[in-house]
Amino acid sequence: MSDQIKLALVGLGTIARSQHLPSIAATDGITLTAIASRNAQEAGLANYTDIDALLAAEDVQAVSLCTPPQGRFAQAASAIAAGRHVMLEKPPGVGVSEIHALRRLAQAKGVTLFTTWHSREAAVVETARSMLADADILRVDIDWREDVRQWHPGQQWIWQAGGLGVFDPGINALSILTRILPDPVFVTDAQLEVPENCQTPIAAAVQMSAGGKAQVSAAFDWRWQGPPQWDIAVQTTTGTITLKKGGAELWLDGVLHSSSEDHEYRRLYARFVELIGRGESDVDVMPLQLVADAFLVGSRSMVEPFHD
Amino acid sequence: MSDQIKLALVGLGTIARSQHLPSIAATDGITLTAIASRNAQEAGLANYTDIDALLAAEDVQAVSLCTPPQGRFAQAASAIAAGRHVMLEKPPGVGVSEIHALRRLAQAKGVTLFTTWHSREAAVVETARSMLADADILRVDIDWREDVRQWHPGQQWIWQAGGLGVFDPGINALSILTRILPDPVFVTDAQLEVPENCQTPIAAAVQMSAGGKAQVSAAFDWRWQGPPQWDIAVQTTTGTITLKKGGAELWLDGVLHSSSEDHEYRRLYARFVELIGRGESDVDVMPLQLVADAFLVGSRSMVEPFHD
Repeated sequence: MSDQIKLALVGLGTIARSQHLPSIAATDGITLTAIASRNAQEAGLANYTDIDALLAAEDVQAVSLCTPPQGRFAQAASAIAAGRHVMLEKPPGVGVSEIHALRRLAQAKGVTLFTTWHSREAAVVETARSMLADADILRVDIDWREDVRQWHPGQQWIWQAGGLGVFDPGINALSILTRILPDPVFVTDAQLEVPENCQTPIAAAVQMSAGGKAQVSAAFDWRWQGPPQWDIAVQTTTGTITLKKGGAELWLDGVLHSSSEDHEYRRLYARFVELIGRGESDVDVMPLQLVADAFLVGSRSMVEPFHD
Repeated sequence: MSDQIKLALVGLGTIARSQHLPSIAATDGITLTAIASRNAQEAGLANYTDIDALLAAEDVQAVSLCTPPQGRFAQAASAIAAGRHVMLEKPPGVGVSEIHALRRLAQAKGVTLFTTWHSREAAVVETARSMLADADILRVDIDWREDVRQWHPGQQWIWQAGGLGVFDPGINALSILTRILPDPVFVTDAQLEVPENCQTPIAAAVQMSAGGKAQVSAAFDWRWQGPPQWDIAVQTTTGTITLKKGGAELWLDGVLHSSSEDHEYRRLYARFVELIGRGESDVDVMPLQLVADAFLVGSRSMVEPFHD
């Protein structure tokens, strides 16, 4: 046990229970010893209602934050100030500038900061990246639709300012996009549809460019009813590479090429252990940058109110 | 003349005539030889209606863009692809991601890219920066109010998506803020007031933090009638440093400490000449990053329509 990294988990909601807890348990080199959660507890662990009490009492070396992004900065800054390594659930914060500030804090303190993008760990993402490294890309289409009532029931914070709305799932597509394309992606235009009783969009179309060479179009829609569509199709001069099911399957010109089980969060924790071992950080704001630019550049229209 | 940098100016609107033309004329080492403007011409120079025709015909080594930010990327990318150094009026583009892409293009081509923030060249900015380098800052208040009808008459693009609205002047304050404060600034919340017939705010309040230590509040308002207020007040443990008139005057605890004439654009062109000579770029997106984050994080309310 002496070479095990002792970890605290902050936030004990759906994603913590379904993904973080089993993935930490399955990852070598890291052991969960404490929890901070306002309302929930986990048997057999040291439980706290806030992170500052936890940091004062527990000798954990690392902290994983899976609370909502609003308020994440203060928690991460506390952990960094206490000399702990920090892993952030996506999105890493409400804005891009706070992540740049966190990066500076982590650098100054000499601790690891890891902004995770779990969809980048999907089964076929690295395969797609390799295939596209030297490809001539003609255009990219992202089709990311799901039923918000099924996937985010009762999550108030997604509709509040800073909650991203339909970009909360959409940012998963953007995290894959920016991983698989060799050229830098930038936003050129966007159209946001915002329910009149909400601050964040329920649907959005975003037009982007890959390096000024290929057009990228994304359609995000939370009003979709039926099985989710999480597809990215990349047309190249030699054929079309399509990532389906959020990166679980790779199709070449309409034929299934490869697929694999989902180990996204196990890979994240393995990478966190690796980064801590190397004394490195991994901070990439680009997926959130594209969302911020879509909000900045985009036109808004009001649509009918949303009631959960 | 052999060591003079030949320059082309793209865009010949108000700011080009009032600032760029006289400043270029007063700057050693650079000579204006060509203009690209859709509608305007300048006697004694080679005039073109678009940048691509200019780049094909003229042997200018450098291009200065003072067109509206929408469409700026394509012009800058063309100039970079043609091996020319590029200087961008503020804001450097409609989104932050396109500036990161431009930076990559300029790096690959080995040319200088300079994202200018003219207000940073205001008389007392560097003095304030020195004074604040080791200060304990308690809080910062930005008060940036002007009459949009006086300062931006008939400028349609500022009200369209990507046009920034009241952040078009407000970004000047943010460019000074991020230059004078030693800690990284990030957005924590914002409230945007958007006329119901426009896409961009006519007024905004932005709450920020300097390094998680000091609160920064900004009030931007275009509905102000009367002489413009362009003030930044920094309270420290040893007194209050106030930059007034957009950085032309520095006041210490209510007493005028120093002031100077405005040479903002001359300094920008002198710096551009220097960067080209050194083979360096100067690309800082942070002022635009803070605006993007304010759009991302902020809540919006609809206010009465605006008619110019």
